Amino acid sequence: MTQSFDIAVIGATGTVGETLVQILEERDFPVGSLHLLASSESAGHSVPFRGKNLRVREVDEFDFSKVQLVFFAAGPAVTLSFASRATAAGCSLIDLSGALPADQAPQVVPEANAHVLVGMKKPFQVSSPSPSATTLAVVLAPLLGIIDLQRINLTASLAVSAQGREAVTELARQTAELLNVRPLEPSFFDRQMAFNLLAQVGKPDEQGHTLLEKRLVREVRQVMALPSLKISVTCIQAPVFFGDSYSVTLQACDEVDLAQVNAALEDAPGIELVEAGDYPTAVGDAVGQDVVYVGRVRRGIDDPSELNLWLTSDNVRKGAALNAVQVAELLIKDLS
Amino acid sequence: MTQSFDIAVIGATGTVGETLVQILEERDFPVGSLHLLASSESAGHSVPFRGKNLRVREVDEFDFSKVQLVFFAAGPAVTLSFASRATAAGCSLIDLSGALPADQAPQVVPEANAHVLVGMKKPFQVSSPSPSATTLAVVLAPLLGIIDLQRINLTASLAVSAQGREAVTELARQTAELLNVRPLEPSFFDRQMAFNLLAQVGKPDEQGHTLLEKRLVREVRQVMALPSLKISVTCIQAPVFFGDSYSVTLQACDEVDLAQVNAALEDAPGIELVEAGDYPTAVGDAVGQDVVYVGRVRRGIDDPSELNLWLTSDNVRKGAALNAVQVAELLIKDLS
Repeated sequence: MTQSFDIAVIGATGTVGETLVQILEERDFPVGSLHLLASSESAGHSVPFRGKNLRVREVDEFDFSKVQLVFFAAGPAVTLSFASRATAAGCSLIDLSGALPADQAPQVVPEANAHVLVGMKKPFQVSSPSPSATTLAVVLAPLLGIIDLQRINLTASLAVSAQGREAVTELARQTAELLNVRPLEPSFFDRQMAFNLLAQVGKPDEQGHTLLEKRLVREVRQVMALPSLKISVTCIQAPVFFGDSYSVTLQACDEVDLAQVNAALEDAPGIELVEAGDYPTAVGDAVGQDVVYVGRVRRGIDDPSELNLWLTSDNVRKGAALNAVQVAELLIKDLS
Repeated sequence: MTQSFDIAVIGATGTVGETLVQILEERDFPVGSLHLLASSESAGHSVPFRGKNLRVREVDEFDFSKVQLVFFAAGPAVTLSFASRATAAGCSLIDLSGALPADQAPQVVPEANAHVLVGMKKPFQVSSPSPSATTLAVVLAPLLGIIDLQRINLTASLAVSAQGREAVTELARQTAELLNVRPLEPSFFDRQMAFNLLAQVGKPDEQGHTLLEKRLVREVRQVMALPSLKISVTCIQAPVFFGDSYSVTLQACDEVDLAQVNAALEDAPGIELVEAGDYPTAVGDAVGQDVVYVGRVRRGIDDPSELNLWLTSDNVRKGAALNAVQVAELLIKDLS
């Protein structure tokens, strides 16, 4: 008889929360009872799970002692409000909001640093990193053994779905208006998003860096255990509904052995390496998939110590919901 | 009395050629007679110039001794077929196709290396670089005196108009089909371009680099007179009709002085620096404009020797047609 676990998902009506519930079902996660929670506005909605529609309830009134594990898939404010109540009730948690400090809830990407979970004390507290950090960590993990990494340069072109359903609707609306040659009045985004690229996602600090960019750098360093790795990052908003794309340059100390790189990527878990000469796209390959797609693997035009890559991944699924469930699959071995 | 010049434009019906004719008019270029030329398929069309519709004629039958200056705004094959006929007739030329070697026709961006034209022998032969190289050169020129540049890392998100009118139509068609939930059958592009990013523009060589990427590196090095500058570049195709966007990292040897950088960009010709905290977009700022827009000027998150920039420019206008006319404005001083 397999043991089962009572689980809560907070933010169950959001894009990530809903996908998380779907993945728990797809992967036959040993769920006993499932409690779907959200803010008061979303409570009352229902989400399908194993053939039934489960009613979403208000997180404020939830008794955390009813569950052994809770996923925080809402914003950082929600995590900060309820995390201590959950752990005080003896409940383990996986946070997807980035709200908790690394020494309280380490960032974990199973393909890269599952070892962090070994010997962790109950109730477990783990963070699932931002989609960009998760994607990058999955690809860096098999490469660190074979290249002496000095610096990463990254332009991340993010899908609007990272900003929720309203952003998705607004991209569609703007596009339709423009195709119908009607005057555009942007809402949600502060300017035209359709057929355009926005150079920053969120407000920059005094130095010009956005929260998202700083979070990415912090999380990648923590997951890869490279606290002083130099990472240069620009996160831009692309007129794409689902799926993130990454133009990545890894600068190594020595000449990069491309055959070794290709072999390592080919063998690594969580990665699909596309054929040389071809390349993956967010929409055509990554969306709905459980792997990070890697293509355009090449050295610098005349710098053999440079490795260039193009990555695409499903920001909602592989970048967020699936990674959290993969962490949970490792945790439940010690949760019984 | 101002002297006027008889001029030919080859490729006059293309996006760049048509814009070039428009710019000659806008800038009151001292045009005597204007001869619009194209391949046999496009001959017979007409293009407006100074209130008249000028008939486009076949380039094959053109007598180059009728003009003093010719713009080659068609593909490289057309330049290779007719450049020697033009120069044999004593006619100076400006090539926008990238077909001619640097020792025959040096790449010139007036904001960066106008001095190359000094003392050049008639008939003049000059190349106007690719839109990406032109944009980058305009921005690098004022910075080279104040940062000790070691390496450039660049992701260029290119508009579909760089591939001509058919590409523009196809992006609109694909978008409409998808919004109407009709099955998508891509043509022109080999896959879905709408709401997607394509990681390479053109076929890569055995090392994985595209012609466009190699051309950009070669041209930037030549214009900046930095033959061994390390440039790492990825050119991607964005679902944008007009206007290119560039995520750029400049790696310097020493700490970058941001105040100096901002002052240099503020004063430089051909550049519009947007306010700190804001950023320019291709559609909202660059399209139809004569300058390269620069924003998100910032150092590395914790590397003061790194300078990050976001650039946007009108690929057809500032990147191509306008640069060629600016070169011509300098040349005619010595053409009389």
